[in-house]
Amino acid sequence: MRKSYNVLLKLFKEACVLEEVNNLLYWDRDVTMPKKGGKQRADQVALISELEHERRIDPRVDELLKFILNHEDYNNLSDLEKRNVFVLQREYNRLVNVPADFVGEFNKQGVLSNEAWEKAKDQSDFSIFLPELEKMVNLNKKYANYLNPEIDPYDALMDYSEPGMTQEKFELLVNPLKEVIVPLIKECQQSSHQPKKNILTRKVPIDLQKKLNLDVLNVIGYDFERGRLDETVHPFTSGSYDDVRITTKYFENNFLSALMSTMHEAGHGEYEHFVGKNGRYQPVGMWCSDGVHECSSRFYENFIGRSLAFWKFYLPKFKEFTGEIFTDVVLKDLVHVINQAEPSAIRADADELTYDLHIILRFELERDLMNGRIEVKDLPTIWNEKVKTILGYEVKNDAEGVLQDIHWSDGLMGYFPTYTLGNIYGAQIFNKLKEDIPDWEKEIEEGNLQKVLNWFRTAVHEKGNLLDSYDLIEDITGEKVSSKYLADYLSTKFNQLYKLNR
Amino acid sequence: MRKSYNVLLKLFKEACVLEEVNNLLYWDRDVTMPKKGGKQRADQVALISELEHERRIDPRVDELLKFILNHEDYNNLSDLEKRNVFVLQREYNRLVNVPADFVGEFNKQGVLSNEAWEKAKDQSDFSIFLPELEKMVNLNKKYANYLNPEIDPYDALMDYSEPGMTQEKFELLVNPLKEVIVPLIKECQQSSHQPKKNILTRKVPIDLQKKLNLDVLNVIGYDFERGRLDETVHPFTSGSYDDVRITTKYFENNFLSALMSTMHEAGHGEYEHFVGKNGRYQPVGMWCSDGVHECSSRFYENFIGRSLAFWKFYLPKFKEFTGEIFTDVVLKDLVHVINQAEPSAIRADADELTYDLHIILRFELERDLMNGRIEVKDLPTIWNEKVKTILGYEVKNDAEGVLQDIHWSDGLMGYFPTYTLGNIYGAQIFNKLKEDIPDWEKEIEEGNLQKVLNWFRTAVHEKGNLLDSYDLIEDITGEKVSSKYLADYLSTKFNQLYKLNR
Repeated sequence: MRKSYNVLLKLFKEACVLEEVNNLLYWDRDVTMPKKGGKQRADQVALISELEHERRIDPRVDELLKFILNHEDYNNLSDLEKRNVFVLQREYNRLVNVPADFVGEFNKQGVLSNEAWEKAKDQSDFSIFLPELEKMVNLNKKYANYLNPEIDPYDALMDYSEPGMTQEKFELLVNPLKEVIVPLIKECQQSSHQPKKNILTRKVPIDLQKKLNLDVLNVIGYDFERGRLDETVHPFTSGSYDDVRITTKYFENNFLSALMSTMHEAGHGEYEHFVGKNGRYQPVGMWCSDGVHECSSRFYENFIGRSLAFWKFYLPKFKEFTGEIFTDVVLKDLVHVINQAEPSAIRADADELTYDLHIILRFELERDLMNGRIEVKDLPTIWNEKVKTILGYEVKNDAEGVLQDIHWSDGLMGYFPTYTLGNIYGAQIFNKLKEDIPDWEKEIEEGNLQKVLNWFRTAVHEKGNLLDSYDLIEDITGEKVSSKYLADYLSTKFNQLYKLNR
Repeated sequence: MRKSYNVLLKLFKEACVLEEVNNLLYWDRDVTMPKKGGKQRADQVALISELEHERRIDPRVDELLKFILNHEDYNNLSDLEKRNVFVLQREYNRLVNVPADFVGEFNKQGVLSNEAWEKAKDQSDFSIFLPELEKMVNLNKKYANYLNPEIDPYDALMDYSEPGMTQEKFELLVNPLKEVIVPLIKECQQSSHQPKKNILTRKVPIDLQKKLNLDVLNVIGYDFERGRLDETVHPFTSGSYDDVRITTKYFENNFLSALMSTMHEAGHGEYEHFVGKNGRYQPVGMWCSDGVHECSSRFYENFIGRSLAFWKFYLPKFKEFTGEIFTDVVLKDLVHVINQAEPSAIRADADELTYDLHIILRFELERDLMNGRIEVKDLPTIWNEKVKTILGYEVKNDAEGVLQDIHWSDGLMGYFPTYTLGNIYGAQIFNKLKEDIPDWEKEIEEGNLQKVLNWFRTAVHEKGNLLDSYDLIEDITGEKVSSKYLADYLSTKFNQLYKLNR
């Protein structure tokens, strides 16, 4: 049986290595590929993803799993080994009906529609993207049906990003959250204590921002012998273990955008750096779920990057890097403006308070697209209406509206909810962290980020996929997943920032 | 039968796509990969090369080939299609006995020994590279035996790089060449008309060199929407068709090195850009042989890049780019020093006259290594002795001696002779070009490189693999391959440069 187990893991490792290769093909597409390389690249990712998929649904996997699970020595496996077997079984069941050539087609279309999306976004013209997105939505419908024809198609996609997640469960978490956030935003807007917005729009030369972002990564302890920082249209993290590359995007008149993207992606990157502790290229040495991945990224970005404690430590360095630009800025004003609660167009740049409303909007659109309640061609109109209703913001054009995110172009649907799940998990974990490290603020203020980050690393990163996300959060915090910690965190934070009388 | 033919080509395309992916993995390793990514990369290239190999020796290939070749409609295939079938058959026969896991092991070892080589070269210490090179030589012996156990192992390797090539054929070409070159070098050294060497060692800032090299590529017409230029320890070209990346290496006190490397790699790159004319991802749309590849690179580097005509056109632009540095330099002095005939350590930087002696040295060493007449551990001593005997140069250390080239670390043996074959083919083709375009010098002097380059493209690049190298050269020039054109070209050129009384 030991031999079968090892063969099973060998097949899994091959799939992981192929996934790494595909990730590099995507990274290269966005960072270094010559302009006209797209067509060849599409063939490459199609083939590699087909081969990866073939390994995941290899008939040998099924045979080996059956053999191991029915073997008299099964109980001699360690808990960790049993978890590997369990996850492999679940993954096999989920993917076995997805044809390999469909995976190739799906990934190839992803590269092609990504090209169309970039062009459409450049020209702020949804019609360029429309036919490609229609193909992508149809492919996602097929995909959902392959994954699990017996459940609602959007549930099937959600479950793939976040094992066990459903629309119903997600709504149970976000509905009470919405009830806290919406009035809170209004109160913040009506408060007489408003942030000094001009701080954020001051021009910071890109070269200088690049140095600043590298320094922040060094402060976090990001290992550049095992990673890189580059610039892309849409920031992302790519790779695993000893080769984890993050990207960011610089705007001359919005230094915060790159800085927060960099910290966000560093959170993803650090997860990948440390996730292999229980065994590289084994299920237990992989990320738990996309929600937990976003929990890590949002933790670095928000709970650290937007905290008073971090800026108490970092403001002097920040001023050093930026020379004359911010000499007049005091700590409390900077922290307030970094946390300004203001309905705006771009999800990735949104503050912590409005952010989850952007996600709820996308969740509703994806759900309705997948169930045929709305059509792709109507997306810009519906998008703009929803942004107006939910966020109270008037979208000016497609580029800052329906075209802002890369996800759909790559074929990623059912992923957006994981950002809010990440926030919810993060707040609950952060609450526990504060109990375990009562002087966490002092540590960070003194520039000793490692105490807090190590705690998070041990609690989250190094656990890999030992437990499903809901179990992991309960294991870490001792309580069932609940959005009340996020609601409380946001209420407290924005009460203080805007001096609300609640 | 048509259907079988298409399936055959589909399998071939998959192998080509996997080869492209592997090329990117190597390119990335040398250009963008984080320092500690090597171990993961080794697993990636091992797996991809195994998968590529599996496709090349897929039992279906054998069945399909047999079916097609014995089919009554075989003669309805076009000549081009028949050539595809012929090349696929030859490749299958050659590779079928090479086990896929051996290919994986070979490529994995290549990544590991490349790491050791870089370190050894940095510290100029052969002992760091020794154990890895021993492994690589042993793997090459095995490889040769798999390719063809019935012939001399070094012949088997040569045949893989250059179909049909043998030690004997190579010696028949180079022995008469050596008899011309060796006395010619002596005469040049004894001539009272020596080049002004200080021109070459003038300091040219790297930033400025980068602009200069990009400009030269633009002059050649290199399409940056289908390619890139980057810097690596050892210049190379990677990729095919619409994504062809070249690299170079800058030295502050030797501007010529980067410039000639860039033109050399541009010759490789342009071959890949245009080789697919008869059908991308088909044998006829692939390069003919490594010798013809080197013919293209050496043509761009030498016949264009070191020509009086080119520098008559380019010198004013060169002076513009380099500001004050070369204002005092006149055309004839620059061309003389660019073509200085001087025994030196580094093959890649060698002048046209001494270059082939570097190759003959490597040819003899590889041949003797493969036949067990010498041992890896004795390489530095034998290398230095041979350089002294053949070139009359005293090697100062391993870095400028046995460690200078990347090839062996990557597992490439039997490849070096193709450089000299490229020179031989190139001179013969150049002779024909001059007949076809009598005013070729005038065209280049006026900056119209395209007439000459288009001729070469039509004659060589676009032919792809329609013919084997010897047939291709005969088809282009109307004569059998001979080294006399290279001998004549070198004699004439160096007679003029050094004002010899021959």
